[in-house]
Amino acid sequence: MENIKVVIWGFGAMGRGMADMLLTKNGVEITGVCDLHPKLVNKSIFEVLESDRKNHSNVIVSDNIEKLLNKDNCDIVLLATDSYTKKSFSKMKMILEKGINIISTAEEMAYPKAQEPELAIELDKLAKDNSVTVIGTGINPGFIMDLLVVALTGAMTDVTHIEANRVNSLSPFGPAVMEEQGVGISVDTFNAGIKNGTLAGHVGFAESVGMISDAIGIKIDKFQQQMEPIITTVDRKSKYGEALQGNVAGVNMTGQGLVDGKVFIDMKHPQQIEPELEGTHTGDYINIKGTPEIHMSITPEIDGGIGTIAVCVNMIPHVINARPGLKTMIDLPVPRAILSDMRDLLDE
Amino acid sequence: MENIKVVIWGFGAMGRGMADMLLTKNGVEITGVCDLHPKLVNKSIFEVLESDRKNHSNVIVSDNIEKLLNKDNCDIVLLATDSYTKKSFSKMKMILEKGINIISTAEEMAYPKAQEPELAIELDKLAKDNSVTVIGTGINPGFIMDLLVVALTGAMTDVTHIEANRVNSLSPFGPAVMEEQGVGISVDTFNAGIKNGTLAGHVGFAESVGMISDAIGIKIDKFQQQMEPIITTVDRKSKYGEALQGNVAGVNMTGQGLVDGKVFIDMKHPQQIEPELEGTHTGDYINIKGTPEIHMSITPEIDGGIGTIAVCVNMIPHVINARPGLKTMIDLPVPRAILSDMRDLLDE
Repeated sequence: MENIKVVIWGFGAMGRGMADMLLTKNGVEITGVCDLHPKLVNKSIFEVLESDRKNHSNVIVSDNIEKLLNKDNCDIVLLATDSYTKKSFSKMKMILEKGINIISTAEEMAYPKAQEPELAIELDKLAKDNSVTVIGTGINPGFIMDLLVVALTGAMTDVTHIEANRVNSLSPFGPAVMEEQGVGISVDTFNAGIKNGTLAGHVGFAESVGMISDAIGIKIDKFQQQMEPIITTVDRKSKYGEALQGNVAGVNMTGQGLVDGKVFIDMKHPQQIEPELEGTHTGDYINIKGTPEIHMSITPEIDGGIGTIAVCVNMIPHVINARPGLKTMIDLPVPRAILSDMRDLLDE
Repeated sequence: MENIKVVIWGFGAMGRGMADMLLTKNGVEITGVCDLHPKLVNKSIFEVLESDRKNHSNVIVSDNIEKLLNKDNCDIVLLATDSYTKKSFSKMKMILEKGINIISTAEEMAYPKAQEPELAIELDKLAKDNSVTVIGTGINPGFIMDLLVVALTGAMTDVTHIEANRVNSLSPFGPAVMEEQGVGISVDTFNAGIKNGTLAGHVGFAESVGMISDAIGIKIDKFQQQMEPIITTVDRKSKYGEALQGNVAGVNMTGQGLVDGKVFIDMKHPQQIEPELEGTHTGDYINIKGTPEIHMSITPEIDGGIGTIAVCVNMIPHVINARPGLKTMIDLPVPRAILSDMRDLLDE
């Protein structure tokens, strides 16, 4: 059997991380990489990754996706270009129409029905018409605050309230994330940034709430979310970020899904640099009321970058095996680390 | 669409618990119950369950399974009669040949390939020949020490060592479990019980190790397990159990899966009455080394009885949807609590 052939579209931090991971795996090869950034185009991916080519075929970053998208060259595209379904829709349409499967890192694609129900229907039809599968995933949304919650409810006879908290450190992240999350700016600038939409915060609560509520069969009457600055009372400094006392060390995102006017799903996701300086312990925490109650914690939190890279790559065989259509993480078997030949996980 | 029709075969603690749970759910009905116990036969299940019949049809416990097993009357059998694949094989054969799906509570059936590879092949063939699905599941094996471990590795790029500990209390259990686990007996009697095979301890390590290793693609050279008495240094007393100082308060089961002569999967499962009396905190703990490391805890442990009942019932729609054959928990989507009509989870 031939190797599984993967094209990576978007060669930023996620695309490169997935490439690094794929190069350590057997039974799978990178057959193309597309990115439009002038600094990347026409470079060898091994130069970009600063890694030894070993016995891998060389791959040159291309700005011409059309050339890479043919079934002979590609079983699946890892699409790591956008956060939003609408922005990546035309790309997905092109891939699906070539008869190729997709795993997207776009946060909204983890549950596209939540924010883009019409595009979700269209994606499902496109995938079915072309006998392939499209899914969005990542550590969050896609795993920690939704799939894992759903799986834990599987051991319960009844559920009355769900709380999912992801408390993470932004310290390992680079300048782009510092800017997106407002690290180091004043509270006034932060509030202005929310007003004019330049501070997005975490994209994913609508998707996680949508996935959980559909999975367990509750009807959310109202979804709401809030975004507050985490104002530091001490000076904090990470590799790429700095927040002086009184300024913003990060963002506290909260969101709720209400049933009959009462909060049924409660989400909290504070992200900041150097949380330990004020006694905050990072971790992923899930508390579910019902029968039996379940209290889960993962400490420290599962790293967002590596986690997203791993979940996407580990889903490759499941997506190739899946029935055609738009899928989400609750439709397919759980992802798993792949230490053997990736082709061993393909159905006959 | 008609209700999903369920027959329960085996009306002990698990069978009754599943019946209780099914009676609270919509879109599903119990169409038959089989048990051979003279105290149960010909009784209404509502009398046995001591529960109000409400608008449910009456169901009389029957000792004639043949009469219950026809497709018009039954979409799926919940088989709660045995712990071992071999002991329940002829029952499963009969059900599958009638074209009916099965969920088994037998511990070995959570991963029958581990202890009964030939019967596993035969079950797969029987299920495929009759276009139905058979699975074994429960809280452990089936969920805590295997499926959840596998799912967490899905967020990892590499795995080098897995530790799964389930520390639980036997205090809620009845006289049968006290006897099986040797609660209250002397250390000498315990050791004699191991020698002559009357103390089984936990059945499931071989299954959990098999499921994990196949899922992540490692080859276990050697599997081993140990069973030691937990000798209490204080007098302990639970509702149905009593262990005086120096006697056995429970069983410490340990097991290991080795790769290249080194422990790769390490399992610990101490079960005892009143563990708090000696400072033991119950819980489910998973620690995985690799990238990134993951440390998960669920405290207290997920209740074994309710958990098994819930996982089995919650898997009903997934099993009906599945492609024909013998499946395990890593082949199907994750179980989830079902708060809506169970038929909503069926594929079109």
